[in-house]
Amino acid sequence: MPAADVFAVQQAIAARRPRRAVIVGGGYIGLEMAEAFTSRELEVTVVEQAPAAMPTVDPELGQLIGRELAGQAVRLATEVTVRAIHPHATGLRVVGDPGFAEPADLVLVVVGVRPDSGLAAAAGVELGARHAIAVDRQMRTNLPGIWAAGDCVHTHHRLLPAPTYLPLGTTAHKQGRIAGDNALGGQASFAGSIGTQVVKVFDLAVARTGLRDAEAAAAGYDPVTVGTVEFDHKAYYPGAHRLRLRITGDRTSGQLLGAQLVGDRRAQVAKRIDIFATALFHRMSVEGLSDLDLSYTPPFGSPWDAVQMAAQTWMRQIQGDQPTQAASHEAGS
Amino acid sequence: MPAADVFAVQQAIAARRPRRAVIVGGGYIGLEMAEAFTSRELEVTVVEQAPAAMPTVDPELGQLIGRELAGQAVRLATEVTVRAIHPHATGLRVVGDPGFAEPADLVLVVVGVRPDSGLAAAAGVELGARHAIAVDRQMRTNLPGIWAAGDCVHTHHRLLPAPTYLPLGTTAHKQGRIAGDNALGGQASFAGSIGTQVVKVFDLAVARTGLRDAEAAAAGYDPVTVGTVEFDHKAYYPGAHRLRLRITGDRTSGQLLGAQLVGDRRAQVAKRIDIFATALFHRMSVEGLSDLDLSYTPPFGSPWDAVQMAAQTWMRQIQGDQPTQAASHEAGS
Repeated sequence: MPAADVFAVQQAIAARRPRRAVIVGGGYIGLEMAEAFTSRELEVTVVEQAPAAMPTVDPELGQLIGRELAGQAVRLATEVTVRAIHPHATGLRVVGDPGFAEPADLVLVVVGVRPDSGLAAAAGVELGARHAIAVDRQMRTNLPGIWAAGDCVHTHHRLLPAPTYLPLGTTAHKQGRIAGDNALGGQASFAGSIGTQVVKVFDLAVARTGLRDAEAAAAGYDPVTVGTVEFDHKAYYPGAHRLRLRITGDRTSGQLLGAQLVGDRRAQVAKRIDIFATALFHRMSVEGLSDLDLSYTPPFGSPWDAVQMAAQTWMRQIQGDQPTQAASHEAGS
Repeated sequence: MPAADVFAVQQAIAARRPRRAVIVGGGYIGLEMAEAFTSRELEVTVVEQAPAAMPTVDPELGQLIGRELAGQAVRLATEVTVRAIHPHATGLRVVGDPGFAEPADLVLVVVGVRPDSGLAAAAGVELGARHAIAVDRQMRTNLPGIWAAGDCVHTHHRLLPAPTYLPLGTTAHKQGRIAGDNALGGQASFAGSIGTQVVKVFDLAVARTGLRDAEAAAAGYDPVTVGTVEFDHKAYYPGAHRLRLRITGDRTSGQLLGAQLVGDRRAQVAKRIDIFATALFHRMSVEGLSDLDLSYTPPFGSPWDAVQMAAQTWMRQIQGDQPTQAASHEAGS
């Protein structure tokens, strides 16, 4: 969220002392704000158009997020499209289809972002995907002497043939540095995004990198996605947590295309997705993940890390010696 | 430790109720056992020949481990060579140079491992580094029909020209699978170790991968090692911990050669070293680490992860625009 919006929400809470909040949108910002409001003792309802919270991960994982929200006393209404916000008695009333009506003292609308490219367009700068500013890998626009970077530009993606729109803070930092270097005469080039993301939702960490099944199919790959459950570390060592992993790979070439991962916030989820992200950067195969020399000690991992056990399950599924759709591995001796 | 040794120690503690333990050797097993004994309320002294605990990492990091041990009431005697263990009054007495004498009810000697290759040698199997069994990447010995894997064999290393001896559980699992595959007619090949390791020492995680400065120099590289301190996640978000990183890279080629990392056990140290390990596997440059699309959210990281900030510090040092030997970066806005 832009800082000005954050302060406005903070001031509204301090000044008006709302009791009930409705958040329209169950994505990254919506769920982070659900946690923030809950810690300020508001009663929170999240309304999401999709069948599960966090539609940027597969619904199998979105359902785990729904369970976490329920455990934290956050109400989640899915498959609801908000139509209006009316003044109502002492506060507001949020109305949606089908048959949704909820009173609120505070309503937060967080349904995604659009690039703020109007000024650039008026100056003659060419726009690209989703009306974001078109830039090359050197962050140059079509106009000499004008570079652009951040949430206002389209994004070169290492696994997609054409630029997409994928505004992320990590990408903005990389692009800003490159635009700055080049504006001063440098020759830096953006290596491309793979869409790595993580968010904390109360006691869960939710992460993804690369392409999901439908995104991969749309880009011309032949994707297969396999889900597994693995412990984050040896189950005999206290504090082991189950990780839910989903690996997407290309059936024909065996190339790793993406990974999704949900688990306890203490289970090193963020840096585990980064192992996949580093492998994706190098166009590794799913099978190749088993060759990686990853760290092991019982409090933090397994001799085959969860990342590798998930990859091995994907391989078995592809090779057809495991007929079930999802396999579960328990960390053994 | 072999399981039989673990049970013998456990039984000795149950039967004899020792109060004072002396551990000879301050490496992985010694420090893990120091923690285990402390949790069983023994008074523990660790004796180490080297100038700091955990001589498999640089002394700058070993000193952090020494501080952690002190905070946990474990005595650490460094630069002491144990010469004898004598019977003494009600128990034992450990004597060493220079001027070390310590009473003990239990003494644990954990000074490293040697390959148990006698049976194989007697059968005519060729030995390699450190008298470990010589195998090729298919885990074949020189004798037809005999494969070998695990702590008894030498280790192919991705960054070294010749096999070394580097017995690790992760490597043993990989090799065992390959030997098994090939004994059944397969064509699997060991991709090689890079020596990735992690250990928990009370509230610290200590990790390394690749080569340290002296190892790299001995292998013909032109290494430079730069240390930094970075937060594991945004400092404004509660619970941030400082990570101590040391990156070794080749001055001439810029190739990443190794990384060492010490930090709080909750700071995703193990899976952060795995980012370096995955980069090393692909022979990345230190500079290339900044191109990786790693995950970010304030509770778990920074827009440039600590891994990348450490790499950027290494680059600045090499380029000479930062004259100090170690730089410290604080996670900013």
